[in-house]
Amino acid sequence: MNRKELTALMRRKRSFLCVGIDPDFERIPKHLKITADDPLFEFNRRIIDATIEYAVAYKPNTSFFEAHGSKGWHSLEKTITYIKDHPKGPVFTIADAKRGDIGNTAKQYARAFFEQMPFDAITVNPYMGHDCVQPFLQFKDKWAIVLGITSNPGAMDFQMLQPQLPLLLEKMGIKTVYWKKLYETVIGQSINWGNVDNMMFVVGATHSDQVSHIRELAPNHFFLIPGVGAQGGKLEDIAAKAMNKEVGILVNASRSIIYASSGEDFDVQAGKAAKALQGQMDAILKQHQL
Amino acid sequence: MNRKELTALMRRKRSFLCVGIDPDFERIPKHLKITADDPLFEFNRRIIDATIEYAVAYKPNTSFFEAHGSKGWHSLEKTITYIKDHPKGPVFTIADAKRGDIGNTAKQYARAFFEQMPFDAITVNPYMGHDCVQPFLQFKDKWAIVLGITSNPGAMDFQMLQPQLPLLLEKMGIKTVYWKKLYETVIGQSINWGNVDNMMFVVGATHSDQVSHIRELAPNHFFLIPGVGAQGGKLEDIAAKAMNKEVGILVNASRSIIYASSGEDFDVQAGKAAKALQGQMDAILKQHQL
Repeated sequence: MNRKELTALMRRKRSFLCVGIDPDFERIPKHLKITADDPLFEFNRRIIDATIEYAVAYKPNTSFFEAHGSKGWHSLEKTITYIKDHPKGPVFTIADAKRGDIGNTAKQYARAFFEQMPFDAITVNPYMGHDCVQPFLQFKDKWAIVLGITSNPGAMDFQMLQPQLPLLLEKMGIKTVYWKKLYETVIGQSINWGNVDNMMFVVGATHSDQVSHIRELAPNHFFLIPGVGAQGGKLEDIAAKAMNKEVGILVNASRSIIYASSGEDFDVQAGKAAKALQGQMDAILKQHQL
Repeated sequence: MNRKELTALMRRKRSFLCVGIDPDFERIPKHLKITADDPLFEFNRRIIDATIEYAVAYKPNTSFFEAHGSKGWHSLEKTITYIKDHPKGPVFTIADAKRGDIGNTAKQYARAFFEQMPFDAITVNPYMGHDCVQPFLQFKDKWAIVLGITSNPGAMDFQMLQPQLPLLLEKMGIKTVYWKKLYETVIGQSINWGNVDNMMFVVGATHSDQVSHIRELAPNHFFLIPGVGAQGGKLEDIAAKAMNKEVGILVNASRSIIYASSGEDFDVQAGKAAKALQGQMDAILKQHQL
């Protein structure tokens, strides 16, 4: 799916909701484990049916499938096929795989997610540099979503690293030149590897104070924004800071939707949670004349 | 496999060779694609049989399996089982997966590689911080191998980043305090997340000038060293700089062994290439009184 189609989809559905498909076997409703041949897929299928009216994207996280071996990987294949063939589609699909490896290896990962499976996008880790991201940028209408700043506590360890000298001087009252944090360098460099049609950035909603600044660094790129809801980010606040005139954001919600209930009505409750978020998004889009 | 067992294995086999299992379908000998039900596994099986006498470790790279979907993942499962059950074992096994994601996700990856499959170790990407590595450190006699400095060109993009001010001052003849490169900070911090019994570092042989320094940063940790051979690193040079009194290094070779021949004798040639490397390693171990 290309940028124009994604933007049109958001306007039509009045939503920028991405539903994270993280089927943790321990949290899947018990009755599915008894009745379904493939509980992972059955859980996903019912979540998708219940939420596709409100979502513009789905983001299965590969780890929850790999934990079940080749059988789990097969559940992932069934899930992406189910989304792609859904009568209420199209929707945008993201493999949350956070891959990152040298060129000949990255090429294999690109094949896995863009050819072997029909994902539109994959999340990629930029730590190993340009040759690890570029192979994902060679596919028409496919996307690499580069980790900019993530929503987890560990984001502070390296992504927010900043040289100490200017900070020290500032404390001493000496004004120093502006000094980059690591994530700013990562976004500033990796933005040159691709373009607005094949690259997005992950921008964690938990770093609300950085979001406006990241939008300045990458005014026209789509952002995939995790961390709203369970992790503490506020939807309106983030949208105000991160949206651009083409919407420009995909806000992900996983646990607050897919585990809205652990009972037999899990899909009904997931649908309600997705609908509530879509309602808020519709209002935000209107506020921004979109 | 724990540290003591790994060191004993190296001394007994007179080798610190890790064979990288990167079965690129385009490079697998043609006859296997016709005769074998599962060419990927058949290729690996014959490579393993031909080299296990000389290798102390195998490192399958997950991308080459994922490129074939759930069928490929099943080939990976068969490969690790084959290695674990090999009559000429035990050998150390590394999933070259370079995973890195938030806590609840990392936990699933740990299950995938340490429980669902019996790998001894997995390579992990530290960019997202401590909570993305710690779940891999909770398993007895299992290892997280953290990317320190990688062997690819893109390693220069971020891993070698160094603040510009001290460099500028140095050029002006003004001596500055020592200033850390990103990889030094990454190793310096992540070394505290685990210990010498559950953590190793990837140290690319292409950064020969950094290796002695990295050994100072982490005197007692095992290093997994890619980039010798095809990528340009010299075995004797790297060993001299990186070995410690418990050997302390696993040197990986992939393409130079597994693609030593593309003919029907590919396994024989792989065995010869592995034997030649092991012979060099034996001599190096002797030089170091090991």
